[in-house]
Amino acid sequence: MYPVVPGHEIVGVVTGVGGGVTRFKPGDTVGVGYFVGSCRSCDSCGKGNENYCAGVVLTSNGVDRAHGGAATKGGFSDVIVVSEHYVLRVPDGLPLDRTAPLLCAGVTVYSPMVRHGLNAPGKHLGVVGLGGLGHVAVKFGKAFGMKVTVISTSPSKRQEAVEHLGADEFLVSRDAEQMKAATGTMDGIIDTVSAWHPIAPLLALLKPLGQMVVVGVPNKPLELPVYAIVPGGKGVAGNSVGSVGDCQAMLEFAGKHGIGAEVEVIKMDYVNTAMERLEKNDVRYRFVIDVAGSLGSAT
Amino acid sequence: MYPVVPGHEIVGVVTGVGGGVTRFKPGDTVGVGYFVGSCRSCDSCGKGNENYCAGVVLTSNGVDRAHGGAATKGGFSDVIVVSEHYVLRVPDGLPLDRTAPLLCAGVTVYSPMVRHGLNAPGKHLGVVGLGGLGHVAVKFGKAFGMKVTVISTSPSKRQEAVEHLGADEFLVSRDAEQMKAATGTMDGIIDTVSAWHPIAPLLALLKPLGQMVVVGVPNKPLELPVYAIVPGGKGVAGNSVGSVGDCQAMLEFAGKHGIGAEVEVIKMDYVNTAMERLEKNDVRYRFVIDVAGSLGSAT
Repeated sequence: MYPVVPGHEIVGVVTGVGGGVTRFKPGDTVGVGYFVGSCRSCDSCGKGNENYCAGVVLTSNGVDRAHGGAATKGGFSDVIVVSEHYVLRVPDGLPLDRTAPLLCAGVTVYSPMVRHGLNAPGKHLGVVGLGGLGHVAVKFGKAFGMKVTVISTSPSKRQEAVEHLGADEFLVSRDAEQMKAATGTMDGIIDTVSAWHPIAPLLALLKPLGQMVVVGVPNKPLELPVYAIVPGGKGVAGNSVGSVGDCQAMLEFAGKHGIGAEVEVIKMDYVNTAMERLEKNDVRYRFVIDVAGSLGSAT
Repeated sequence: MYPVVPGHEIVGVVTGVGGGVTRFKPGDTVGVGYFVGSCRSCDSCGKGNENYCAGVVLTSNGVDRAHGGAATKGGFSDVIVVSEHYVLRVPDGLPLDRTAPLLCAGVTVYSPMVRHGLNAPGKHLGVVGLGGLGHVAVKFGKAFGMKVTVISTSPSKRQEAVEHLGADEFLVSRDAEQMKAATGTMDGIIDTVSAWHPIAPLLALLKPLGQMVVVGVPNKPLELPVYAIVPGGKGVAGNSVGSVGDCQAMLEFAGKHGIGAEVEVIKMDYVNTAMERLEKNDVRYRFVIDVAGSLGSAT
């Protein structure tokens, strides 16, 4: 809906608060994620799963029914006004730029890891795809004390995965021998790939009762042969970002373990160049757009 | 592997025990399910998930490596010898014939209900398909205190589902209006259908974070559009029977609530007629073959 202001992974400093706001004060470093509102009366909201509320209000280009149905304007702006219920506290010590992508990419992988028990030391996590979401999943997995294996179609990402991000192992998904040798070794898999891909070979990597979580959005249906899940009692679940509570817990965890996203910071003046590079797939992990110098950044 | 003796849902009375057997004595009423052995040293066995042991020994036509690799012979026989570790105690008061199918069909639906928390009063369970597995799922769901809705392609099963089995509601899956009205109302779904069928319309019936469990085995891959699971954080899991512990717990639960399968008992002499009727799909729920009068029966 035009005019549009993008930006849904926002960090910055509070410049003012409205009457009745108790949780934040000017000067606080805060974040805003994928949504800035929800109905606060449905079952999902009642259980603290605002991200699954049917009336969730997206941060950018969402429909804000409580304010006349106007389109929301996101973080590529000098200032933004957000209800305190949907504002996150950024722990001291986390750099703003590396924190911004955690507000969506970070919580999207963190929250299903916690929900499905893939946050236990000694467990073995597979991460499929090594982009904006996958690389953060590797960092969380290692911080949880897990063994982490990156699974990629591209052998060229091995060094990146193991040496730079600290993954324990690397599997080329097109290498049948490697995949066979890893059969039945993983407790869980976070699949971040948005292009269509076969998931049966990934499900084969899971131990019995293992859990795969899909956070990418291929536009063709995935193929799910029942032999891939019935004999081992395995599961495939979807996940969409996380709740306000998940997001705050994720930030605390990131603060404690010094976890930030790998980013390339681009001044707002050059945002068009960044968009052109995005279209050419010329981005390693995540662009962060610096809108107002040291005070704000937004992916 | 011929010669074959079928029968994997067995009930009967202990006629004798070997040296060292402590859990059973002659005269005990017992059952034997889908498997009669496992490696007892792997991770799955260690966690009490023998059904997911790679070395599980099926009750009929399984490969019994511990005994020279001979094919196991199942319950269509006067007697069977089974290690006490894989023998279940049948609670007093459960009739043998209605208990036999619980040893496979029963635990196949009971164990995932418990594993995925679909055994809580007030929750809403969908049961897809009303055959040998589905009808038992309805009974367990009601005994757990849940609201149970049967989903079927066949409107003719409504009376059966609601009046005979006690389901609360009945949905015709081909009726788009009915399906739409039930969108987002169920906590979980047990899908027992073995013919290929679209699962996206079923996933739409789940609440956010709802869980579908597949226990049928269609021979073509199911289609899993990610839009059906990602926005609601929903899951699809497989399940294969249950552990020895699950099976014993299921029998205790059935005994407490007087749950038995709907069966048609056929004397061994007429087993060929039963097989012919099976091929014609002329069986309502489950045949139980009575091998030795009052002492044994096996599906």
